[in-house]
Amino acid sequence: MRPFKSLISFDEAQKIGLNAAEPITRVEKVDVQDALNKVLSSEIRAEIAVPPFDRAAMDGYAVKASETFGTDQFDPKVLKVIGKVHAGEVPEKEIQQGQCIEIATGAKIPKGADAVVMIEDTEREGENVKIFKPVYPEANLSKEGSDISKGEVILREGEVLNPSKIGVLTSLGIDSVEVYERPKVAIIPTGNEVAEIDEELKDGQVYNSNSYALACIAFENGAIPIRMGIVEDSFDAIKSALEEFLSNDFVVLSGGSSVGERDVLVDVVESLGKVLFHGVQVKPGKPLLLGQVDDKLVLGTPGYPTACLIDGYAFMAPIIRKMARLPEKVRQKVKAKLSRRVVSTLGRQQFLTVKLKNGEAIPVFKESGAITSMAEADGYVEIAANVDLVEKGDDVEVYLF
Amino acid sequence: MRPFKSLISFDEAQKIGLNAAEPITRVEKVDVQDALNKVLSSEIRAEIAVPPFDRAAMDGYAVKASETFGTDQFDPKVLKVIGKVHAGEVPEKEIQQGQCIEIATGAKIPKGADAVVMIEDTEREGENVKIFKPVYPEANLSKEGSDISKGEVILREGEVLNPSKIGVLTSLGIDSVEVYERPKVAIIPTGNEVAEIDEELKDGQVYNSNSYALACIAFENGAIPIRMGIVEDSFDAIKSALEEFLSNDFVVLSGGSSVGERDVLVDVVESLGKVLFHGVQVKPGKPLLLGQVDDKLVLGTPGYPTACLIDGYAFMAPIIRKMARLPEKVRQKVKAKLSRRVVSTLGRQQFLTVKLKNGEAIPVFKESGAITSMAEADGYVEIAANVDLVEKGDDVEVYLF
Repeated sequence: MRPFKSLISFDEAQKIGLNAAEPITRVEKVDVQDALNKVLSSEIRAEIAVPPFDRAAMDGYAVKASETFGTDQFDPKVLKVIGKVHAGEVPEKEIQQGQCIEIATGAKIPKGADAVVMIEDTEREGENVKIFKPVYPEANLSKEGSDISKGEVILREGEVLNPSKIGVLTSLGIDSVEVYERPKVAIIPTGNEVAEIDEELKDGQVYNSNSYALACIAFENGAIPIRMGIVEDSFDAIKSALEEFLSNDFVVLSGGSSVGERDVLVDVVESLGKVLFHGVQVKPGKPLLLGQVDDKLVLGTPGYPTACLIDGYAFMAPIIRKMARLPEKVRQKVKAKLSRRVVSTLGRQQFLTVKLKNGEAIPVFKESGAITSMAEADGYVEIAANVDLVEKGDDVEVYLF
Repeated sequence: MRPFKSLISFDEAQKIGLNAAEPITRVEKVDVQDALNKVLSSEIRAEIAVPPFDRAAMDGYAVKASETFGTDQFDPKVLKVIGKVHAGEVPEKEIQQGQCIEIATGAKIPKGADAVVMIEDTEREGENVKIFKPVYPEANLSKEGSDISKGEVILREGEVLNPSKIGVLTSLGIDSVEVYERPKVAIIPTGNEVAEIDEELKDGQVYNSNSYALACIAFENGAIPIRMGIVEDSFDAIKSALEEFLSNDFVVLSGGSSVGERDVLVDVVESLGKVLFHGVQVKPGKPLLLGQVDDKLVLGTPGYPTACLIDGYAFMAPIIRKMARLPEKVRQKVKAKLSRRVVSTLGRQQFLTVKLKNGEAIPVFKESGAITSMAEADGYVEIAANVDLVEKGDDVEVYLF
């Protein structure tokens, strides 16, 4: 059994991981309806103008603006209504001096008109309409291309397609789009004590839960998680699993990175590539291993559920986001008062899982081996490596899961 | 053409919408791997204990704690190592006075032992091991059921299944789970000027973009969005579409809720059910209609993209979340300084879309009809109905999309 030689700091570990992670360069074409939250791999140039024609921005009358100059409530301009144009229709007539055309919001402006008088500023009298308010040229209309001009680069490589950007694409009539592929993350449960959830539990066994939870975290951060079968905790088994699953973009193992006799991942990684770090000053989650084999990252997370999940959120997720080209997650935080005194371990940054209630942060951490330490938590409080005590009632910031 | 009679406030409109929305009561059984972010429809009771047996929490030696009392670095206790137990194995021997068994983290504690001495506090010498530090009973082990006890209600009805809770389910060997169905939201583009994105645009037409963007917002908030074909802007067409699509949980129309002659949605809703409100003091997004037909909500959003999307985020999303039984979204906000003076309309709450750059909030709002007003925005600033001016350099809070 080999103890950790020297642990690196949490920040250092994150830096090493993020530096080593490479954004995916493969691209794929997807239907625009499947493109939400995917990342554009090339710029989008508008092949049409939006709007594609001058259109009314208000319901009212299309007029020559100059004819309305000087009108007011007591001296309205009277124009002859020579037609009507609804949205989707092409106006047939051209307006001349003294004329106007009734127009609906979104309809194409007739020839001869250069402004729209709002319905509220008019009064209809048979074939005529009284205009009570002057309009300047281009008033109440949207010019062709005022939103997006033809030929304009409207979305750039690297942009994440949120609902509004999906709206931009469809407003241009684009029905498929080239995006970066999502990183494929192989998730491998290891350990002779681990049983699949559809099996009968034998004496001495526990169910495979980490790979499900890690797969969810990977998915939420832009990856395609692929859960593999349970791999036996031996050098040969882990080596051949690793060699097989390195066809993916990132390999994450759960269990097998502690210091026990059977913790062979470090040996396997050393035999195939290199270990970037092993052991981090963080609690829980210390026995974390990051390695590199054939330019692929290999992450060994501890088998203990809370330790595994904390490492999943704190280390795996940012690496996946970089590979997926997604921006750093804005961590949501709320202020609360700690409900009881907490003693921390000097030299290790602690992630203390807490539940929020009535403005209090109530620690729910039981032990690294307890999954309920995570499941009951609304978030966690970070206690720096150089702090050994936080008092009851102290203000803390809770990062929400 | 009928103008709005009286507008209600933004807050009032939201209150009416949320009061009228009913959480979905239908349930479905899903595989645990498909249950992420779904909502439990019944409590989960643990049918096994977790851990299912007393297990070592550390690598070391399983001992009788009382035999270690009084030992120290200079006067170690010597115990005979009678065996070894790895994780996943069942210890065969029972330890007696003067004996111990080497044990790996996660392995089942042998009979006769009640504590584990950490490997770091021992020194092996052939068949014997020196114990340098005393342990109290139950030290360094996890008792059966200490995480989850058998029969315990571990997750409750209404809980959202985040990655940790998926971990809890799988740690109990649960492979499928009963959850509430997601609300089905029918999204109907209306308007004679609207063309499908795979069609050639005719003169006077614009592409259907709103229903794609609304579908994305609905999806992100827990719904199953169903985009329908474009419906002509006539009483009969909208009426029969509404009647057909009321088989869904929520019907959202885009376009057709302004005051133009062809804006017939209000008439249709009145003929089939009742209008809850029509017209909201918000900019953009004023021509919003909420109705109720056969206990189903019908939302009419304006056809103009930015107006439509703002209403989608501000009104539709919270209603969908309530139906989907998801908690209110924590709106992420950042502080910034407004990059230029903004004049707002008294009496209307303004959602000013802005881009963030170097701590400045730069307004990108062009007009309600411009989709780029949304697409270029990182978020929006809310300007209250009773504020008519925000100065350049003023501190504002930007809510991120």
